[in-house]
Amino acid sequence: MSKLSHIDEAGAAHMVDVGSKADTERLAVAETTVLMQQETLTLIIAGDLPKGDVLAACRIAGVMAAKKTSDLIPLCHPLALTSVKIEINPISDCEIKIIARVKTRGQTGVEMEALTAASVAALTLYDMAKAVDKGMIIQNTRLILKEGGKSGRYEAEK
Amino acid sequence: MSKLSHIDEAGAAHMVDVGSKADTERLAVAETTVLMQQETLTLIIAGDLPKGDVLAACRIAGVMAAKKTSDLIPLCHPLALTSVKIEINPISDCEIKIIARVKTRGQTGVEMEALTAASVAALTLYDMAKAVDKGMIIQNTRLILKEGGKSGRYEAEK
Amino acid sequence: MSKLSHIDEAGAAHMVDVGSKADTERLAVAETTVLMQQETLTLIIAGDLPKGDVLAACRIAGVMAAKKTSDLIPLCHPLALTSVKIEINPISDCEIKIIARVKTRGQTGVEMEALTAASVAALTLYDMAKAVDKGMIIQNTRLILKEGGKSGRYEAEK
Amino acid sequence: MSKLSHIDEAGAAHMVDVGSKADTERLAVAETTVLMQQETLTLIIAGDLPKGDVLAACRIAGVMAAKKTSDLIPLCHPLALTSVKIEINPISDCEIKIIARVKTRGQTGVEMEALTAASVAALTLYDMAKAVDKGMIIQNTRLILKEGGKSGRYEAEK
Amino acid sequence: MSKLSHIDEAGAAHMVDVGSKADTERLAVAETTVLMQQETLTLIIAGDLPKGDVLAACRIAGVMAAKKTSDLIPLCHPLALTSVKIEINPISDCEIKIIARVKTRGQTGVEMEALTAASVAALTLYDMAKAVDKGMIIQNTRLILKEGGKSGRYEAEK
Amino acid sequence: MSKLSHIDEAGAAHMVDVGSKADTERLAVAETTVLMQQETLTLIIAGDLPKGDVLAACRIAGVMAAKKTSDLIPLCHPLALTSVKIEINPISDCEIKIIARVKTRGQTGVEMEALTAASVAALTLYDMAKAVDKGMIIQNTRLILKEGGKSGRYEAEK
Repeated sequence: MSKLSHIDEAGAAHMVDVGSKADTERLAVAETTVLMQQETLTLIIAGDLPKGDVLAACRIAGVMAAKKTSDLIPLCHPLALTSVKIEINPISDCEIKIIARVKTRGQTGVEMEALTAASVAALTLYDMAKAVDKGMIIQNTRLILKEGGKSGRYEAEK
Repeated sequence: MSKLSHIDEAGAAHMVDVGSKADTERLAVAETTVLMQQETLTLIIAGDLPKGDVLAACRIAGVMAAKKTSDLIPLCHPLALTSVKIEINPISDCEIKIIARVKTRGQTGVEMEALTAASVAALTLYDMAKAVDKGMIIQNTRLILKEGGKSGRYEAEK
Repeated sequence: MSKLSHIDEAGAAHMVDVGSKADTERLAVAETTVLMQQETLTLIIAGDLPKGDVLAACRIAGVMAAKKTSDLIPLCHPLALTSVKIEINPISDCEIKIIARVKTRGQTGVEMEALTAASVAALTLYDMAKAVDKGMIIQNTRLILKEGGKSGRYEAEK
Repeated sequence: MSKLSHIDEAGAAHMVDVGSKADTERLAVAETTVLMQQETLTLIIAGDLPKGDVLAACRIAGVMAAKKTSDLIPLCHPLALTSVKIEINPISDCEIKIIARVKTRGQTGVEMEALTAASVAALTLYDMAKAVDKGMIIQNTRLILKEGGKSGRYEAEK
Repeated sequence: MSKLSHIDEAGAAHMVDVGSKADTERLAVAETTVLMQQETLTLIIAGDLPKGDVLAACRIAGVMAAKKTSDLIPLCHPLALTSVKIEINPISDCEIKIIARVKTRGQTGVEMEALTAASVAALTLYDMAKAVDKGMIIQNTRLILKEGGKSGRYEAEK
Repeated sequence: MSKLSHIDEAGAAHMVDVGSKADTERLAVAETTVLMQQETLTLIIAGDLPKGDVLAACRIAGVMAAKKTSDLIPLCHPLALTSVKIEINPISDCEIKIIARVKTRGQTGVEMEALTAASVAALTLYDMAKAVDKGMIIQNTRLILKEGGKSGRYEAEK
């Protein structure tokens, strides 16, 4: 067996067998940051008031993407998610941080679901503001916390 | 009209009307970089031989994601893509760069398709190697080139 | 916490955490009625013989839509449905009633699945007959029965 | 040929051939009304402030559903929509009206896309508020305007 | 360039560029045959009367699959189909033949759409009857006719 | 009840109720063979080196299709697959055999998932090589093994 779990000894991709794993509660938290011009951030925050559709669109796109993860990532197992939450907040005058928190009770973890939710929320933010700032950059997309399953707790370094 | 094109004067999200735009040839190129441990990169390159399913899975996931963009990004117009190409190459002993190049002939650009393709290829790379390196980071996802349409050519700064 | 369960105290949409809910057998029944001209109803019934593709298309579209509910309704949890049944019957010379009955064993109810199945079956009926009657109206789409889960049995007033 | 255009002379369902139709600008507008208790409407309006995710979720679900119409309605042609706009407004102290406006340039009309968008926006509204009011009813889902194509303009009676 | 058009000179898969191809009318016809026990065929024909949902389900599944082809076949271009027709007929006392006929006006052919429609209709037939005959075999899935495009007319040998 | 399990006594299609079935481990194995010209097989094998995207694309398309089965086959229950493996090997100088092996723990079997995975992998192989050989034929798509569930083990005759 290769150390890359989705690849067998012959180098072929497969969806690895998780049938013998126990169902456990699982949580994953991923984050990403969208870097933009200061004027863009001002517009996004302004455009979010009073109706709020700018950040609402990002949150909803993130939740819906979490549910589509196994359709996007070829070797990902389908999972019945029990919770998805997306938080979006400015962290400086030119950066918006997106945090995605996903839970399930199942045989595999939800790292990919959390990373996919954060990424698609960030892409949606790009889409909402690209008419004014094509130079936005999506930065530091990464897993920050994982709980549950045999491999146990993982927490990213600060 | 808000300067955020998907948001109307009342703050509500909508799919903006492109019916009066001309059909033109459009190209967009996006890139992203996956930062990982040196041992992980070695395993990926090794795991890619002789059958190649590791990077093949990333390329194929990227192409398929480009086609799903309007299903992922809420206000994105559906487009009949005429070409999608994903290039994946190591650029240092701990970084793999992914470049997605998308074309269409239509009424709106394909920036979101290129960014989505690059992002999903990167997420797939994370998925392939997460058993050995949960700390991988997806960096600098951004548009590097756009051609066609009324707003003309855009090229990112180096 | 807002009384609207998908909205948190800050007004943000999320997929509410059902991880602590018990798996129970759940049933939901929804109905809708399509109002049309008498001639249209006659054509639909006639067109349904001998091959039956008109109402078969509606039943099948309803079943398939039930399975897509979590992809359509942004904050709906994905569920592994155990049964979907669509009944379609004329109830007057210008009305066809559609009843959708959905079951699962899981942590959340299947009201949305039943309502979505009934709605899409009705939309399909509109699509089948719109060449002859664009004025058809879909009426009284509503939940009529719900069983299972902590909130218990719900039955609509007659 | 049956008068039901999706059914051939033998009664079999097919996707009718539109290859010889001209590409023309097409518009369809559909509406639906969600009837609820007065307290529910008050909560929805309140829940929509300050972040607005309640009605934003409905608008976004409606736009995304318009893009999925050919995946939901079995015999519907796939179309590249050029515009989708959802308006949601209270029209009494217990009714919220949803209007969906869809455009394309193509060989078939967008009635089904407008009706699907309005229906899914209404179902999403039900989902957002069902914890407080399971008795909400979706009423009068219908086409109100259609322009373009050989069959010309259609406007519903008031 | 490799002779396999989806593979570039380096062996990497991509969605080949069809942007310079002309839009032409395109037709493809594919067929497949499902071999079963005589009793199974009798049940299917009987089960198709009077409501017809058995073969209607196969026809509808075939039409819907044609529309999903670019989502299933990784390097297939998305296309706006203008016509899909599925014919299903017994050709002996233990064989049912399925013919799928697909048209578009576009830059690439619809061979994959016709083959996918025929295959999914056959799989649906298997699903409908598998409770009584798990030994059914899907035979001779192949392209029988292709028209339009630069490579011109193709007709399979009898 | 009809002997065709998806059809009720009135001939109507429904998704049969499996709610009372026990969750058991389930396995299904399906196979298919793609018949082609000798030169085509040589090209495919050559094109698979050194990067391997030809057969990798088929394997990945097969795995992804297994996950989409309930979206393709109208009356199929959605299932959380625990393992999918596709093997692709030449078995003569003009035939490539594809074997799909699917597992789950659930209330219904995975025959349709295995057959769908094998079929879509074969269709993808056709797509990869159709530029050089439109006459390829997909042969003998069938279930070869099924384990688990009340109906017990099934093994196809050689």
